[in-house]
Amino acid sequence: MAEDVVDVVVVGAGLAGLAAARDLSRAGRSVVVVEARDRVGGRIVNHRFADGSEVEIGGQWVGPTQDRVLALAAEVEAATYPTYDTGALLTVRSGRVVRHRSPTFGLPPAAVAEIAVSQPRLERIARRVDLDSPWATRGADALDAQTFETWIRRHHRTETARAFWRLAVEAVFAAEPRDISLLHVAFYIGSGGSLERLLGTRRGAQQDRIAGGSVVLAERLADRLRHEGVEIRLGAPVRAVEQGDDAVVVRHDGGEVRAGRAVVAVPPTLAGRIRWSPLLPARRDQLLQKVPMGSVTKCLVVYDEPFWRDEGLCGQVASLEDPVTITFDNTLPTEGAPGVIVAFLEGDHARRAAELSPRERELLVTRSLARFFGPRASSPVDYAERDWAAEEWTRGCYGAHLAPGVWSSFGDLLREPWGRVHWAGTETAAVWNGYMDGAVRSGERAANEVLAAG
Amino acid sequence: MAEDVVDVVVVGAGLAGLAAARDLSRAGRSVVVVEARDRVGGRIVNHRFADGSEVEIGGQWVGPTQDRVLALAAEVEAATYPTYDTGALLTVRSGRVVRHRSPTFGLPPAAVAEIAVSQPRLERIARRVDLDSPWATRGADALDAQTFETWIRRHHRTETARAFWRLAVEAVFAAEPRDISLLHVAFYIGSGGSLERLLGTRRGAQQDRIAGGSVVLAERLADRLRHEGVEIRLGAPVRAVEQGDDAVVVRHDGGEVRAGRAVVAVPPTLAGRIRWSPLLPARRDQLLQKVPMGSVTKCLVVYDEPFWRDEGLCGQVASLEDPVTITFDNTLPTEGAPGVIVAFLEGDHARRAAELSPRERELLVTRSLARFFGPRASSPVDYAERDWAAEEWTRGCYGAHLAPGVWSSFGDLLREPWGRVHWAGTETAAVWNGYMDGAVRSGERAANEVLAAG
Repeated sequence: MAEDVVDVVVVGAGLAGLAAARDLSRAGRSVVVVEARDRVGGRIVNHRFADGSEVEIGGQWVGPTQDRVLALAAEVEAATYPTYDTGALLTVRSGRVVRHRSPTFGLPPAAVAEIAVSQPRLERIARRVDLDSPWATRGADALDAQTFETWIRRHHRTETARAFWRLAVEAVFAAEPRDISLLHVAFYIGSGGSLERLLGTRRGAQQDRIAGGSVVLAERLADRLRHEGVEIRLGAPVRAVEQGDDAVVVRHDGGEVRAGRAVVAVPPTLAGRIRWSPLLPARRDQLLQKVPMGSVTKCLVVYDEPFWRDEGLCGQVASLEDPVTITFDNTLPTEGAPGVIVAFLEGDHARRAAELSPRERELLVTRSLARFFGPRASSPVDYAERDWAAEEWTRGCYGAHLAPGVWSSFGDLLREPWGRVHWAGTETAAVWNGYMDGAVRSGERAANEVLAAG
Repeated sequence: MAEDVVDVVVVGAGLAGLAAARDLSRAGRSVVVVEARDRVGGRIVNHRFADGSEVEIGGQWVGPTQDRVLALAAEVEAATYPTYDTGALLTVRSGRVVRHRSPTFGLPPAAVAEIAVSQPRLERIARRVDLDSPWATRGADALDAQTFETWIRRHHRTETARAFWRLAVEAVFAAEPRDISLLHVAFYIGSGGSLERLLGTRRGAQQDRIAGGSVVLAERLADRLRHEGVEIRLGAPVRAVEQGDDAVVVRHDGGEVRAGRAVVAVPPTLAGRIRWSPLLPARRDQLLQKVPMGSVTKCLVVYDEPFWRDEGLCGQVASLEDPVTITFDNTLPTEGAPGVIVAFLEGDHARRAAELSPRERELLVTRSLARFFGPRASSPVDYAERDWAAEEWTRGCYGAHLAPGVWSSFGDLLREPWGRVHWAGTETAAVWNGYMDGAVRSGERAANEVLAAG
């Protein structure tokens, strides 16, 4: 088997790996990118419908302050356009579908009153989190000793306020509030800037979409890299990484690459499944045992037209009661395009729905949508879904979540280089951790580390 | 490469795998056991000192109600003998080394008063846990929504009472109270019978040792199995498991085994590193992302004689303040044997100590022992240690611990067979989960499943 020799080998051709490859290549390093899938993009990908239209079925949105992914979009000449946001929102709670345009989500006054106290409290904690070293935050010990569910119960007596926070956690992490430490939630809010920014459409993380789908960011960047001489090896799952005194060898199905340094840009839990030689140090191995991925099935439900718009609805729903917890209008911005609702099954909802047959699951989803948008929603003309936990080379989305204690006992290793191995991936980002922007930042940071190492 | 064909292939030659192999073989099934290490026993092993003596450096104790491991001991004619337990205990707290013989651990009255209320409260919860289905326990939702640290803080105001519970968790789980849900702690106590039984020497889980070391249970059972025609293939790490309609194929370094069924008896986190074909179902894969192992370094410190006995001490220490949190007298029961203290570094203590050089770590340990037992403890004649998180084929001891939410969202899959694959290992046991007895029980249960399947 031929062994290829380069300056740097990058494992993973998602945005993180590609951004690292770009910066390394442009600094004059020879680079090979090795990717398990037969495509680039990792957690971002389009679904192609029978009519040829393509809609995002992985990560998709960008928003203000996501400067690095927006710079990438500009670089590859990908236009952005606003997420459809005209009309009323719906909140489902207390057995009712409430139409509203309010920043308080149409919640009842008692819940609003509680959240009006608790949200600023949480934002205050988030602002004081040390994003580079969350474990060094003042009070980290107490913040990382409890689940976010404990915090929810402590600060809210109304079931609706509690349900609101559970929904918010599901929407952001695709996990349950009991799965995650208060410190991790505060870190994540700080990492994105504010809770309003994480949850928001206009001026928030869901503000804009990428023309052609977010995956064009990866595809066009990959094309440019190939043009610049970077080899991107697809269908090449990495099975083993061996580092010695003067090189690191990455063995993948069908070949291997020898390099001076490696950038590993895959989810931490998947990094733990690689055979490392020498063995991963004990604490680093245990870290990789403790960075699980969320559970989400993203569903695209297609109608002949976006009929909800005629009823003054923007297509955005937050339900405290349904299997589908969050929807957006995901219609393509072309004249006369069919209407598309993107519906998310998250956390326990996703796991329960995964037990159903595809047909049963589609019915589960369209039943929720019919409750939100009326009987027309029962009869989609097309339907697609992706259970990201079932994807061999991701094993869960949107990203990883950290249980109590993990930041405190293991967090310092998340992006600390190990010999010739550097770590990228949105899970290692200090800013916009978990988002496409964090992925790009992590790749840029890892490239800088490699360049600084000489 | 030759492919061997048998009725059942067992992955892992720890007590769980060997017990499964035994019951299957004796029911007339042809069995091959495949083991990554070049020895049997998994988490139980002796350290051989320069003088030829052998002392347990893995799991070692047995106690009342551990009927299945005791039956195994009787079967292989391994004698048990009592853990040395004569004399006073020491508790280190509030800057003092307190000599005591009390069930209240020599704690100050304010702490004792708090624990006198909280311990029965915890035992009551433990008694109501459904050991077969912890997630179905009445009130499981609230129990699994919080960390044990949250419970500690809620029910104790004195720092000493809190420190006592943290020590108890470290001693039992080699993890921190923030890492584990209240439901998991309650399950674990229920699984062992009572907290007193988990923590106790006489009438407890540390009551007895096995003559020759606990590893003789595995070694002698393996010898008998070989004699009965079971092949035990050592040095054969399993890399892939492929199941089809009528067979399962286990591929290991250097060979493969085809069988009707497989019993996988390795820690869940390591099972997640095997390549599964077809892919693990999504929720099962995510379960294996969420069953991390504890962190413990077991240290054997040898002196020319057990000098503490002359001072009326039994060698058992519980320190709320030192890196070494727990010790026992681990002297072999032969006349004139050198004195051995077994000292545990657990949880964060183990992880911090792992950053030191071996010499620095030995000094850290002997400094703790000198504080407990006086200056003679500073000068051991021999020293051995094992960091179980550094062991490739265990990656942490004593066992796994479950964070909040894991029992609720994933627990039902821990031992649910998946097609032709059955799961063993002490992490899958309902009774004495985490102990050698649980390992034996899990192997017996998995064998019964296979036999019931025909």
